[in-house]
Amino acid sequence: MIATKAYAAQTKDSGLAPWNFQRRDIGPRDVQFDILFCGVCHSDLHQIQDEWGGSIFPMVPGHEIVGRVVKVGAEVKKFKVGDLAGTGCLVDSCRTCDNCKHGLEQYCTNGHSQTYNGVEQDKKTPTYGGYSNTIVVHEDFVLSISDKLDLASVAPLLCAGITTYSPLRHWKVGKGHKLAVLGLGGLGHMAVKFGVAFGAEVTVLSTSASKEADAKKLGAHKFVVTSDREQTKAVAGYFDFIIDTVSAAHDLGLYLSLLKTDGAHILVGAPPDPAQLHAFSLIPGRKTLAGSMIGGLPETQEMLDFCAQHNIVSDIELIDMKDIQKAFDRMVKGDVRYRFVIDMATL
Amino acid sequence: MIATKAYAAQTKDSGLAPWNFQRRDIGPRDVQFDILFCGVCHSDLHQIQDEWGGSIFPMVPGHEIVGRVVKVGAEVKKFKVGDLAGTGCLVDSCRTCDNCKHGLEQYCTNGHSQTYNGVEQDKKTPTYGGYSNTIVVHEDFVLSISDKLDLASVAPLLCAGITTYSPLRHWKVGKGHKLAVLGLGGLGHMAVKFGVAFGAEVTVLSTSASKEADAKKLGAHKFVVTSDREQTKAVAGYFDFIIDTVSAAHDLGLYLSLLKTDGAHILVGAPPDPAQLHAFSLIPGRKTLAGSMIGGLPETQEMLDFCAQHNIVSDIELIDMKDIQKAFDRMVKGDVRYRFVIDMATL
Repeated sequence: MIATKAYAAQTKDSGLAPWNFQRRDIGPRDVQFDILFCGVCHSDLHQIQDEWGGSIFPMVPGHEIVGRVVKVGAEVKKFKVGDLAGTGCLVDSCRTCDNCKHGLEQYCTNGHSQTYNGVEQDKKTPTYGGYSNTIVVHEDFVLSISDKLDLASVAPLLCAGITTYSPLRHWKVGKGHKLAVLGLGGLGHMAVKFGVAFGAEVTVLSTSASKEADAKKLGAHKFVVTSDREQTKAVAGYFDFIIDTVSAAHDLGLYLSLLKTDGAHILVGAPPDPAQLHAFSLIPGRKTLAGSMIGGLPETQEMLDFCAQHNIVSDIELIDMKDIQKAFDRMVKGDVRYRFVIDMATL
Repeated sequence: MIATKAYAAQTKDSGLAPWNFQRRDIGPRDVQFDILFCGVCHSDLHQIQDEWGGSIFPMVPGHEIVGRVVKVGAEVKKFKVGDLAGTGCLVDSCRTCDNCKHGLEQYCTNGHSQTYNGVEQDKKTPTYGGYSNTIVVHEDFVLSISDKLDLASVAPLLCAGITTYSPLRHWKVGKGHKLAVLGLGGLGHMAVKFGVAFGAEVTVLSTSASKEADAKKLGAHKFVVTSDREQTKAVAGYFDFIIDTVSAAHDLGLYLSLLKTDGAHILVGAPPDPAQLHAFSLIPGRKTLAGSMIGGLPETQEMLDFCAQHNIVSDIELIDMKDIQKAFDRMVKGDVRYRFVIDMATL
């Protein structure tokens, strides 16, 4: 077994504190990599506070994990010691269902293994995430990371990146499309970068007028303050796609009214409570409300390769492990541009 | 002007009673046809009772209209006196917006003219529907009707038919797909017939076990009583498409759980109040909730031609005009198999 240092939550009210545990020894197809950086996702906080229900404690959060390989199993082909490596939201899946066979492990119908707050495929051994110094993962769930990009800024691509890249690719968003990005946080700022890279006209929809300069700096072509009725009226029926990164309650009817005929509103953020939705928000205009969840392994690698080729990374603030609670507090207020990343050397 | 006999509602509480009014004289591209049959749509009742708001009185309902041409304007090319003709939910549109140019007049961005409870393109002259003895419509909004089918049974195709045909075609439902039809009423029974004709495996989802024999008679391959938890559990993650014809409140989350990955739930019925929708009903499984509204003129003609070719009509109960209130009462209770059609000779 491999002695591992981590920060963990012991209960939903405990917050995070140092905790030691054992990771499994590496099997023939496992890769062990030491974690250099781990991104801080809003879902980390949702889960350690058990806001979605069913949390498994103790919990070591973190699913935007990058580092350097220190050991590989006898049959590992993709990695060697010294390589950069990453793991996102998944560490395993059944590999036999239709979705797994098509590289859609995130939709594994037998239940994938989340990187943390989940269980291995034995359906009982808990998984522990990236707020730790080292991790052991089957090579099929380890991503190759280019050394051309700033490694700390790559970490958030493993969740915020793929969560926005995947739906933009699935719905074939690109040249000639008008894309709205709803919410300019960790996910939103990546959606802007990818939307621009794919050739769409990108508009940021935000409640905060103060974010306009930043949105433009990220490449957005337009900015609409959604609390300003004149500004929203001017974009009624305007967009082909809205990518909705907001995980607080918001009025879907308002945003659906900004879509063209056949437009699609794609949810990637999940508010804790159900929204109100009137059928008449969808029927006249043949509109679509859809959801999308992270991405599968082949697409995550494709996204990382695309980022290396187009020099795309996340905008981050690097923090020390001990400052995680301060980071959570600022994240809840939306006071981060645009993703906290933990320097795991400070663990 | 053309003296016209009708049944009209004078206020939202008045119910329907005989009323005489004048239709416009036919213009150079107008077609006048005497109405032989008119279907009774649930939306007729919603609108005469002003349940959707904004109703225009006096109101002559009816948008499933078939009859025989009695006069044509000097420039009319498509019709001659004696032809069978039909009109559905639309009598005009702007003809200049992108949607109109693409034959999607139902989504006219400048506002189409509904057959009744609407206004002409002058945006002030009220329109009066098919519970009347004759109608004048621009030839572009008049459909050709085959004489191969029972004419009374064709009437409901103009709304119930196209409302289900259009989304099944748009989402390319066919061979290899598992289609669920939610609700077995006027729309639902047409969705079953089209789904079967397009080669899908069709399952009727209904709260009434008593409808099973009828569903099978209509061609459905399977039947699930949705109030039976074991039966719904057995079809979790089973369907590629659900076509939702129910206009009473119902639990979208339950039905979305019956969809496969990438499955689509298509609303064609509109409950008066908003539904509750949790983002997690869509995100894990990349599911889609969409809406669809009737169909454009080219697609409505295509549907009528398809029906003539495949011998598809609505199952109807023919009623006398004077019995309309009894028909409404039975319709509200779901006691109609599957569409009332008024024999306009009884007006």
